[in-house]
Amino acid sequence: MIDSADIKLVGEHTDIYQVGMRNMRNYTLLAELGKTGKPVLLKRGDSAKLEEWLAAADYIYRNGNENIILCERGIRTFEDYTRNTLDLAAVAAARNESCLPIFVDPSHGTGRVELVRPMSLASIAAGASGLLLEVHFDPQKAWSDGKQTVTPAVLKKIIDDCRHIAGVG
Amino acid sequence: MIDSADIKLVGEHTDIYQVGMRNMRNYTLLAELGKTGKPVLLKRGDSAKLEEWLAAADYIYRNGNENIILCERGIRTFEDYTRNTLDLAAVAAARNESCLPIFVDPSHGTGRVELVRPMSLASIAAGASGLLLEVHFDPQKAWSDGKQTVTPAVLKKIIDDCRHIAGVG
Amino acid sequence: MIDSADIKLVGEHTDIYQVGMRNMRNYTLLAELGKTGKPVLLKRGDSAKLEEWLAAADYIYRNGNENIILCERGIRTFEDYTRNTLDLAAVAAARNESCLPIFVDPSHGTGRVELVRPMSLASIAAGASGLLLEVHFDPQKAWSDGKQTVTPAVLKKIIDDCRHIAGVG
Amino acid sequence: MIDSADIKLVGEHTDIYQVGMRNMRNYTLLAELGKTGKPVLLKRGDSAKLEEWLAAADYIYRNGNENIILCERGIRTFEDYTRNTLDLAAVAAARNESCLPIFVDPSHGTGRVELVRPMSLASIAAGASGLLLEVHFDPQKAWSDGKQTVTPAVLKKIIDDCRHIAGVG
Repeated sequence: MIDSADIKLVGEHTDIYQVGMRNMRNYTLLAELGKTGKPVLLKRGDSAKLEEWLAAADYIYRNGNENIILCERGIRTFEDYTRNTLDLAAVAAARNESCLPIFVDPSHGTGRVELVRPMSLASIAAGASGLLLEVHFDPQKAWSDGKQTVTPAVLKKIIDDCRHIAGVG
Repeated sequence: MIDSADIKLVGEHTDIYQVGMRNMRNYTLLAELGKTGKPVLLKRGDSAKLEEWLAAADYIYRNGNENIILCERGIRTFEDYTRNTLDLAAVAAARNESCLPIFVDPSHGTGRVELVRPMSLASIAAGASGLLLEVHFDPQKAWSDGKQTVTPAVLKKIIDDCRHIAGVG
Repeated sequence: MIDSADIKLVGEHTDIYQVGMRNMRNYTLLAELGKTGKPVLLKRGDSAKLEEWLAAADYIYRNGNENIILCERGIRTFEDYTRNTLDLAAVAAARNESCLPIFVDPSHGTGRVELVRPMSLASIAAGASGLLLEVHFDPQKAWSDGKQTVTPAVLKKIIDDCRHIAGVG
Repeated sequence: MIDSADIKLVGEHTDIYQVGMRNMRNYTLLAELGKTGKPVLLKRGDSAKLEEWLAAADYIYRNGNENIILCERGIRTFEDYTRNTLDLAAVAAARNESCLPIFVDPSHGTGRVELVRPMSLASIAAGASGLLLEVHFDPQKAWSDGKQTVTPAVLKKIIDDCRHIAGVG
């Protein structure tokens, strides 16, 4: 189990904590992270409703840490073409229901490299403030998640395109 | 039941047939529409996988009608903040798996007027060729679906923003 | 498309109409069946909520036909070990919310022959009045659905066991 | 966070550990429980597939503890009449795929007191070895979950009926 010593150790070597989707409902962990000063990126659980996701962020917030980033990474549905179903309406909704910045993870959200770029653009268009992208110089040799990993060249293109989209509206 | 006479009658007075999500698996209807020359907008069933949606389009295609538009309108999931869960990755995927144009219906897809604009932009960014939008001069007085209906002023803004996004990439 | 002549023709040669799950929301078909005097077995749509299923039955009922059997055959969820997810709580609930008899189809509901017997027993225990079972003397040679089809010997065992369970409570 | 001291403390005062559905994917917790000698009841996560549930049990097993009870408590689907959708086919399937005993929790699985008895009977008929039931002398005054809590009189009836069903087959 993760204990306070682990949290301290990780905090000494990183700029930000990431709470994976399996831990979104780990309330003692959330409370403990609320006592740190570091930013926390809180991934949405794959069966979490919007209000449950925001309530999880509240556990961190109420314990004293306001530096929270929400991160949509897909929910589990009957559709198995993609690894998960990226719920971009939840991104737009979270902007209305919360004052926290929202990121999207199109790599885990789709599980398919060819969908990462279009869903990155769609995420920014839906109101996301940032993206979490898996990048590798040679995705086929990546130790994990190679099928959803883009190259630096594609990353460059995604960043350029997102800049244009972020300026709209 | 819809019969051939109905199809003929509707065809005489409209420019396009729309197959609602409840009829996506009505194979005899699809086959019959394949014998007409008019465009058919085929909505995705709310429990249809991508491959089933494309297979439904094939029923129309094989009967002789190539003028088909696919329309994503949301799938049914556990998330009830929105009326349905708009699956924009399916839009990007359908572009790869099919040569048909793809529209998105953010009105039915979200059921919430404040989400129609961001999801319209996200749809175009994901690769949609068009949008199906409910518009009313006074949405609160609309006979149906007022909660997901935008005003002409918002429509104008959506169109302008989508033009900019469509130029990216 | 199904038209009135089809309904009449089928009625002349069968004892009961079966509305498949793809047609549960085919309201004109339901209304037309309501005008016949024959029993109608109404399968639940794979994305239909309990109240929508009961509302579909109401279309038949209000048009004059009270001989309706509800049939649960599984809903579509993320679980893909089984073909569908058999929702037996909906069977128990339908008994409370409706006066109609309820059947269960464990063959389509699970898609796996080894689960047909236990789910048949569970269905009766949950309050089902009957079962819809696929049976074949040599399931491996069945033209369709062989993987979910039991032999007459298994059918005999299911019937015997269900008799005992039906007597409980 | 739960740490080793917590596990030890709980172990000193209880006969069995229960891993709630939110912790089914808390792998460090599972591994730690594997090092204890006490039985562990492992609830299925509300978005966990059968194979993921069994894999979670394996974390406990491989760390040295063979005293594991699987517990089905419902998965999250679009159906909101019930609190969750009790997946009894997964119970029958788990009996085939695993040698572990399987319990069912119809209280959390349905969230409705009137469905607890029929789903208890259905669970046993599907092959469950035991039930987890919320019972209170005066459910309306229960501190939590009163809506899914039965009285001792109903419990007695459930036990009697389940005894008869367990003898079938």
